[in-house]
Amino acid sequence: MPDFFEDNTADQNAIEQQLDFLREIDQLKSVIRKSPLIDQSRKENSAEHSWHLAMYALILKDRSENPINVDRVIKMLLIHDIVEIDAGDHPIHETTENSLQEEAELNAAERIFGLLPTVQGEELKALWHEFEAAESDDAVFAKSLDRLQPLIHNIATDGGTWVEGNVSHEQVTQRYGSVIVAGSKALWHHVKSLVAQYFQSK
Amino acid sequence: MPDFFEDNTADQNAIEQQLDFLREIDQLKSVIRKSPLIDQSRKENSAEHSWHLAMYALILKDRSENPINVDRVIKMLLIHDIVEIDAGDHPIHETTENSLQEEAELNAAERIFGLLPTVQGEELKALWHEFEAAESDDAVFAKSLDRLQPLIHNIATDGGTWVEGNVSHEQVTQRYGSVIVAGSKALWHHVKSLVAQYFQSK
Ligand SMILES: [Ca+2]
Repeated sequence: MPDFFEDNTADQNAIEQQLDFLREIDQLKSVIRKSPLIDQSRKENSAEHSWHLAMYALILKDRSENPINVDRVIKMLLIHDIVEIDAGDHPIHETTENSLQEEAELNAAERIFGLLPTVQGEELKALWHEFEAAESDDAVFAKSLDRLQPLIHNIATDGGTWVEGNVSHEQVTQRYGSVIVAGSKALWHHVKSLVAQYFQSK
Repeated sequence: MPDFFEDNTADQNAIEQQLDFLREIDQLKSVIRKSPLIDQSRKENSAEHSWHLAMYALILKDRSENPINVDRVIKMLLIHDIVEIDAGDHPIHETTENSLQEEAELNAAERIFGLLPTVQGEELKALWHEFEAAESDDAVFAKSLDRLQPLIHNIATDGGTWVEGNVSHEQVTQRYGSVIVAGSKALWHHVKSLVAQYFQSK
């Protein structure tokens, strides 16, 4: 009997840690990105962006250059921006001190994933590090989708953040193309002509 | 050579259908739910809600009453509200004509998943139907999380939609408890005491 009650209490404590984490990450809905929604009614937040990217993975899974585990890619994309709750969103056209940003994100990962029961927190932190390192096939594909989605939004909104940032065709090819093509030659082949059409229309 | 070009064109057409779908579902970010964010700054939208539920599944997967495939549960939750783009969100405390609502959702599923290449669209439509039917273990757990998350938000915001709707302790037990307990006795055991505490404090 005492064992039963002890286990039960441990279990209830673990559930409370898990719910704490799930309450904490609600704040990702208030981290505002530079990218517009396609209807241009407002800027996108990082929580709905993460949902959209998970959908990109689900829909485009067969376009990956290398064999991937789509379930891992989806999980990676669901958690990839959670550190922004503490460290903020840093768009690719911004020039921040990289080492400071990196340190802020590392601390954020420790704190936020640290809310979870230890083993679970460590697993998710490892998955986030894998995404950041961008070396595994799963991470390379996840990164390419993270670059593809804002490109699609910029084209759909007559330039979006490219207009504000005065970004050139060449810069789009460098900053987006290089990452997208690593994950999927087929997707880059497709969208590079959409990019070319956009810049020709300017 | 002609075969190569034909296949390539078919591929590019399929990518364009997939991107069309991914652009279309951007509208889920503008479907506003009744539930508040935990910081009460605004109401939640259905896209960020879907992200949050996918995170609930990832974090709480071991709490399911029956063995589940968490990867299927995550996919189900990612797509479960997409029909709301056409059919709107209908909270559980609302009394709408059920058959009209059901028809609107069926039409929405046909139209929106119909944007995808046929096989892929049919697969996702089947997954959405499975969620709606709430019979498989995966769907029962997904449904229980869809009920758990707004309950957590209501408790964290001093009643949330329960205050507006004048919802009683008994009604919470009926409308939320019955669905949550089917997916996870452990989770309902935990949150029913949070619910009791909330209603005692009124
Ligand atoms: Ca719903």
